[in-house]
Amino acid sequence: MKEISHLLGYRKEIKVVDATMRDGGLVNDFRFEDEFVKSLYMTNIRAGVDYMELGYKSSKEMFDPKKFGKWKFCNDEDIVKVIGDKNPAIKLAVMADVGRTNYKQDIRERKNSPLDCIRVATYINTIPAAIDMIEDAKKKGYEVTCNIMAISNAREGDIKVALDMLCQSPADVIYIVDSFGALFPEQVQRIADTYLEVCTKHGKQVGIHAHNNLQLAFANSIEAIGDGVNWVDATYYGMGRGAGNCSMENLLSFLRNPKFNLYPVIQFVENYMVPLRESGTVWGYDLQYLMTGYLNQHPRTAIAFTKEKRNDYIEFYTEIVAQD
Amino acid sequence: MKEISHLLGYRKEIKVVDATMRDGGLVNDFRFEDEFVKSLYMTNIRAGVDYMELGYKSSKEMFDPKKFGKWKFCNDEDIVKVIGDKNPAIKLAVMADVGRTNYKQDIRERKNSPLDCIRVATYINTIPAAIDMIEDAKKKGYEVTCNIMAISNAREGDIKVALDMLCQSPADVIYIVDSFGALFPEQVQRIADTYLEVCTKHGKQVGIHAHNNLQLAFANSIEAIGDGVNWVDATYYGMGRGAGNCSMENLLSFLRNPKFNLYPVIQFVENYMVPLRESGTVWGYDLQYLMTGYLNQHPRTAIAFTKEKRNDYIEFYTEIVAQD
Repeated sequence: MKEISHLLGYRKEIKVVDATMRDGGLVNDFRFEDEFVKSLYMTNIRAGVDYMELGYKSSKEMFDPKKFGKWKFCNDEDIVKVIGDKNPAIKLAVMADVGRTNYKQDIRERKNSPLDCIRVATYINTIPAAIDMIEDAKKKGYEVTCNIMAISNAREGDIKVALDMLCQSPADVIYIVDSFGALFPEQVQRIADTYLEVCTKHGKQVGIHAHNNLQLAFANSIEAIGDGVNWVDATYYGMGRGAGNCSMENLLSFLRNPKFNLYPVIQFVENYMVPLRESGTVWGYDLQYLMTGYLNQHPRTAIAFTKEKRNDYIEFYTEIVAQD
Repeated sequence: MKEISHLLGYRKEIKVVDATMRDGGLVNDFRFEDEFVKSLYMTNIRAGVDYMELGYKSSKEMFDPKKFGKWKFCNDEDIVKVIGDKNPAIKLAVMADVGRTNYKQDIRERKNSPLDCIRVATYINTIPAAIDMIEDAKKKGYEVTCNIMAISNAREGDIKVALDMLCQSPADVIYIVDSFGALFPEQVQRIADTYLEVCTKHGKQVGIHAHNNLQLAFANSIEAIGDGVNWVDATYYGMGRGAGNCSMENLLSFLRNPKFNLYPVIQFVENYMVPLRESGTVWGYDLQYLMTGYLNQHPRTAIAFTKEKRNDYIEFYTEIVAQD
């Protein structure tokens, strides 16, 4: 049983990462207004959030910049233009996907960039490519996380091998990413234990990025915190792909470190997130995400179902069970 | 750490209680169409649900039957008219509130009633009155549960005394009821342990009724199941007061006993619950419920906020923090 002191006290090591623009960007093709971004940045500082993830460093050879908002590419110049001078109260991060980033070219030396942290996203079968990116970012001076996606689909033996490889790399943090939103808290606990056993030995931190397909994004995040995971992703109003993520308001109401502040988060939700949703941008839990989560499938079919404004859940269930 | 076998296997002792009409009735003043009720009943049988709670046995002296749907009163004649002949595949239950029920008069002998189970709802300071109702229902031949409401507000010492008293009564099941939706899974675990220690000695079962104010209704329910709680309440599409309850579709997708069936639940949600919501009946998680849950307050202010269609979350937060 976890210590009750974990609930009433706090661990100062816990870092909160705002992933609204990165995971939420998958919902609106990264088309956030400059004023939204600036206000989110100021809100994060007031709320005590440690890292703000602005989007992806995507390859402009693979993706047409005309078809997406600028936060899919996160040019350093665009960041500086919107955010202004760096504030030491918060660190800026971007995600770089294995196989979809010209990292050698598009990621500059940290001293010439507004960015502080590169988050390398990989599936479990592309760890060597991830390590090349991790080493590149580390050499350039960045803090580096490695986010192993779709962890609910990975075998335990493979996870252990991946962790052994990554613990030889210069990555600072290794993430549990439940991309399919398929994990129950008991499974999160087991995976966290596996991660922590290896990572603690090598002086690396462990992170959690949860999805809400089973209405468990917040529950799985606090389960992981109770297990010793120190880096936690959250998004305002839970905005994120499909069923969305652990909501920032949930997370900050749970954390007891007085450096965190719920009030500005509620203000931002009222002033920006509610209008964003009312303007027709759709995310969040619904039955179609429960179904793909329950079947441990990628949510792409459920996202298409949502986009087409279907509500024939039974027909959808029949379709995806047949795919299994 | 809980055994992984709990997740892949199942305990045949687990009983699922559909509380849609009772807790959901608090949202629409118990105005469910006969066809809805009949279809829900047939769905529950196909889904393998063990108990269906139809509503309250409320005092007609205290509440005007003209102002509510019939399921606030659950006259035996009304039940028989809508449900038809009893089917041994499912048991029927009603809730009887301490201080709001003419139980001696309104609850008949079980052999003359379509009902099988009386659920006595009490606060922790009215246990003697609850025991009088439990004894009355038991004498009349019913299965009896005692549901201790607002447990997040009860002191641990009081809970132990209440359990000692109830374990001397003929109640079959004693419920953890998180009326304020304020508990985290770690707290559920502690309360469940306290309940189970006393109840197991006396051959009584423990139940859980969760609310979704912190987006934890499902998480807290499966936490309790993992701890040894065998009676679990759920509602279709999570319909229930304020932020609603643990959803039936979540719960049945989690339980591994092949007697449970998710498919008819999805059918019912598509055919009845989605239209009910689209017709303007409002329930489910939103920021105002997070705030009352987080402050461990009764959700009545958040329900009023919802009814008035307000979205000035910051003003609301200021109001309820001032009340604390």
